[in-house]
Amino acid sequence: MDIRSLVKKEIASLKAYQAKEVSCRVKLDANESPYGFEEALMAVRQIRTNRYPDPEAKKLKAILAKGLGLSPEKLLQGNGSDELIYNLITTFGGPVLYPVPTFSMYGIIAQALGEEKREIPLDREFDIDLGKMETAVIKNKPKLVFLSSPNNPTGNCFSSERILRLVEISKGLVVVDEAYQPFSDGKGFVPLLKDYKNLVILRTLSKVGLAALRFGYLIAHEDIIREVNKVRLPFNVNALSQAVAVEALKKKTMLKEAILAITEERNRLLPAMERIRGVEPFPSEANFILFRVKDPKKVHAMLLNAGILVRDISDAVAGCLRVTVSTPKDNDLFLRGLGRIAKEL
Amino acid sequence: MDIRSLVKKEIASLKAYQAKEVSCRVKLDANESPYGFEEALMAVRQIRTNRYPDPEAKKLKAILAKGLGLSPEKLLQGNGSDELIYNLITTFGGPVLYPVPTFSMYGIIAQALGEEKREIPLDREFDIDLGKMETAVIKNKPKLVFLSSPNNPTGNCFSSERILRLVEISKGLVVVDEAYQPFSDGKGFVPLLKDYKNLVILRTLSKVGLAALRFGYLIAHEDIIREVNKVRLPFNVNALSQAVAVEALKKKTMLKEAILAITEERNRLLPAMERIRGVEPFPSEANFILFRVKDPKKVHAMLLNAGILVRDISDAVAGCLRVTVSTPKDNDLFLRGLGRIAKEL
Repeated sequence: MDIRSLVKKEIASLKAYQAKEVSCRVKLDANESPYGFEEALMAVRQIRTNRYPDPEAKKLKAILAKGLGLSPEKLLQGNGSDELIYNLITTFGGPVLYPVPTFSMYGIIAQALGEEKREIPLDREFDIDLGKMETAVIKNKPKLVFLSSPNNPTGNCFSSERILRLVEISKGLVVVDEAYQPFSDGKGFVPLLKDYKNLVILRTLSKVGLAALRFGYLIAHEDIIREVNKVRLPFNVNALSQAVAVEALKKKTMLKEAILAITEERNRLLPAMERIRGVEPFPSEANFILFRVKDPKKVHAMLLNAGILVRDISDAVAGCLRVTVSTPKDNDLFLRGLGRIAKEL
Repeated sequence: MDIRSLVKKEIASLKAYQAKEVSCRVKLDANESPYGFEEALMAVRQIRTNRYPDPEAKKLKAILAKGLGLSPEKLLQGNGSDELIYNLITTFGGPVLYPVPTFSMYGIIAQALGEEKREIPLDREFDIDLGKMETAVIKNKPKLVFLSSPNNPTGNCFSSERILRLVEISKGLVVVDEAYQPFSDGKGFVPLLKDYKNLVILRTLSKVGLAALRFGYLIAHEDIIREVNKVRLPFNVNALSQAVAVEALKKKTMLKEAILAITEERNRLLPAMERIRGVEPFPSEANFILFRVKDPKKVHAMLLNAGILVRDISDAVAGCLRVTVSTPKDNDLFLRGLGRIAKEL
């Protein structure tokens, strides 16, 4: 029996997201925070392992909703925000429209679900190419537009006016993926939810020190939540992650301090990278920096050889690597390594 | 903007799986084990909350594979086995065929994914109606046949010969969902994997004391694992559940003792229920017992009034409720409550 002949044709040609563990001393490849909240882990003590988790994640949604000044009915919990991307595309279908380069999961999930996807290149400043995107919205009538802002892997926020213009002309939903919003100066799009029923926001705890938990959430009008909730698996967020997330979210000051430490380091790292000859970093409002070098594959390999793992983005953005902002010590190791390598090239 | 007009039509008519928390003294509705493994929770101490989980769940698959005498390449990890049902249907599509009554998620997920579903009634003994299922396999050419054995909610195993006959004539995959297999005398279908490339087995830790973790796994030929893995979200099993599951699985004897305690209680509970006038329990190889009463809604409400929550199955099996086997004390409370109510009817 030939299994490949049995699978749906869009799956046969699908290349899965690559998430292999590479051993290294300094891990700067996955946009993780360098700061964990291990104290919060002890919240698992209250759990009875034999009982299913709260299917509605009530405590967790309550604390998040309170922080946002919204009703919990406007939130939906996900096993990471990528599960919510799955749920959105399952619920609304395609076409799915997004600018590129961006987070690869929009395209992978659309293809996995057999939905049409349309990719429109960003402009030269890595911002939304409004003319092309407007044309695509009008012509292709996407059910879903995904906008990662700050955008992964470019690091910039898209212009708010351009995003809003797309929200206004779209007859489908516009999903602003705010995974990296905590590292940006802007306020994000939550305050605009009340004005636009077709605006959807994605958030995650993965970038702020809780990647181990796999928790993301969707913020949208109750009518949207109600429909997407139909395709959500009933117990999609396990009891351990729920308990630890609640505990960590109580420590607001600690979370904020960790974020501040990272943005300060980013603001130090960027000019330091600019000073290295042959390295062209791009401005960032996220917890990572995209940078261009002459031979990205070689620089990636040489950094890894020095124990430093960054992400090779050169397939998506010519000549580029992406480095996650970490502790001062890690960042110094990276800067020194990159400086040495730049001289050798 | 009318959101319902935007959703896919199969979603608009979808009724989500109902998993509401009902407060009660004795919880016998969700086929949970009464025995947890809280000692294993301390395994979370090793976790760094800021790091993504192992995307391949290597340690967990290694310990499971060893126990099964299989290579880890034959296993795929799921955020509960219901996520793996999602992944299977996403990968292979429909038609999806299954006998009814059975686990409701096969149908819900097929509908959520817009795939055709075919339901064939079980025979009078709650076994596979081989003639009708053979006809459906030949006529509808299902990509996936789901067989829950022991079957939820009826409690019986299907005849092995009938299952194997369907595996043999099917040009698609036959998925034997062995969620309740640990409570059965049989060996299950793992030993037959080597003979049938289109045989797929689902297992879960949810029924054996670890429902809080959300962990299920799929066992199949490497060619199947490779394709289904393409649609799996890269970090679908969080780090906490991975660590706790590994720790709990090391305590083989404890796991076995808990299962033995439950099956012994089931074997005590069944004849005791038979002795109650107006109660007709069905034989079970699972951790629950299906039973028929004259007025199931009323009995359900009266039990709940006494603090005892069972599952109302009467929409799927006329006149029936389902009770999860629990500790001797819980079971006695249930027996006494049911006895009292039976007299009043």
